[in-house]
Amino acid sequence: MIRLIVVEPEGAYNVGFIARLVKNFSVDEFYLVNPKCNMQEAINFSAQGREILEKKAVIVSNYDDTIKDLDIKIATSSIADNEGDLLRKSIKPWDLDRFIENNKKIGLIFGRESVGLTREEIMKADFLLHIPGNPEYPVLNLSHAVGIILYEVFKLRNVKNTEKNEDERISS
Amino acid sequence: MIRLIVVEPEGAYNVGFIARLVKNFSVDEFYLVNPKCNMQEAINFSAQGREILEKKAVIVSNYDDTIKDLDIKIATSSIADNEGDLLRKSIKPWDLDRFIENNKKIGLIFGRESVGLTREEIMKADFLLHIPGNPEYPVLNLSHAVGIILYEVFKLRNVKNTEKNEDERISS
Ligand SMILES: Nc1ncnc2c1ncn2[C@@H]1O[C@H](CSCC[C@H](N)C(=O)O)[C@@H](O)[C@H]1O
Ligand SMILES: Nc1ncnc2c1ncn2[C@@H]1O[C@H](CSCC[C@H](N)C(=O)O)[C@@H](O)[C@H]1O
Ligand SMILES: Nc1ncnc2c1ncn2[C@@H]1O[C@H](CSCC[C@H](N)C(=O)O)[C@@H](O)[C@H]1O
Repeated sequence: MIRLIVVEPEGAYNVGFIARLVKNFSVDEFYLVNPKCNMQEAINFSAQGREILEKKAVIVSNYDDTIKDLDIKIATSSIADNEGDLLRKSIKPWDLDRFIENNKKIGLIFGRESVGLTREEIMKADFLLHIPGNPEYPVLNLSHAVGIILYEVFKLRNVKNTEKNEDERISS
Repeated sequence: MIRLIVVEPEGAYNVGFIARLVKNFSVDEFYLVNPKCNMQEAINFSAQGREILEKKAVIVSNYDDTIKDLDIKIATSSIADNEGDLLRKSIKPWDLDRFIENNKKIGLIFGRESVGLTREEIMKADFLLHIPGNPEYPVLNLSHAVGIILYEVFKLRNVKNTEKNEDERISS
């Protein structure tokens, strides 16, 4: 089970795009902590993700409530692996394969456009995930970071497993 | 060498986000064919990708001019593998690994938000690339599709090669 958690998003367009991505990649649960943008405006950017905003999205005011029942909590950051900062030792998107097991509840946590996640929010997670890019400018726009991670998770859950199953069928 | 080609984009936000992604993932060349949106407005969505729009982006009026000197032309589509439609037999993002060689000029071609690429434009390419997703709604927003492909290419060019080199160093 994959739960997407977005903390205090500020841009309506990002919330709309993320709702669309939730549908594109069949995410199980979608939580918004204290969104700072106009949710009606977000609908304009959601295309067929509109129903996700209207029916599936759970809006809460407290971050802790969104993570307490999870088995594995994965925070994301554009900053990672700074020397001497252990909190920032990161995993990469493709490392998620070892967590994708059927009965685990996995949370993927994304931060504010302006300041990301706080150190306190990151410390409550089990892992810090970083998407590698141009070392001079690895800071992705929020919804594009979400899209890349959801794509990797979809691939690991659906495509790779199917290929593995087919290989097993063929070899047996 | 990777050239990103976007044909007749309609949304200024998408052009801005794509410019940011070009910087995030160190794309070599960036062509816009006949953009239908306000390029000044696009800058508002580009963050530090602003310099990409101002200095790197090449705006042309003719699609053919952007592909004629390429070794491998890869068109993208949200529609793929329709039965009986050979043109639509697709490759997946991770299949790009076999094309990522140092001396090849590779073009990645994206279409309009409203109608994608025309069949004529797709026919001029060597491969059709499709990002798998929810079969009921695999249609990504343009700039999110670009982000996912550029992430895979960056990974294949930088990260995986480095890991392979390290493995070779260790085992030799
Ligand atoms: N390279 C990257 N890897 C992982 N997540 C990223 C990322 N780039 C952006 N994000 C996600 O997008 C969110 C908004 S970007 C936050 C940028 C902010 N200037 C800062 O100081 O952190 C981040 O909190 C993270 O969830
Ligand atoms: N690796 C690091 N090195 C130095 N300071 C750091 C740091 N990580 C966090 N901080 C400090 O802790 C503050 C809150 S952490 C927020 C970091 C960022 N928004 C992100 O998650 O992507 C930062 O503004 C910075 O002052
Ligand atoms: N699942 C997917 N795989 C690959 N490219 C995609 C994609 N979803 C969107 N795109 C890219 O985003 C562009 C705009 S989406 C175009 C949708 C349009 N309704 C159509 O009929 O095609 C596409 O041309 C393609 O370049």
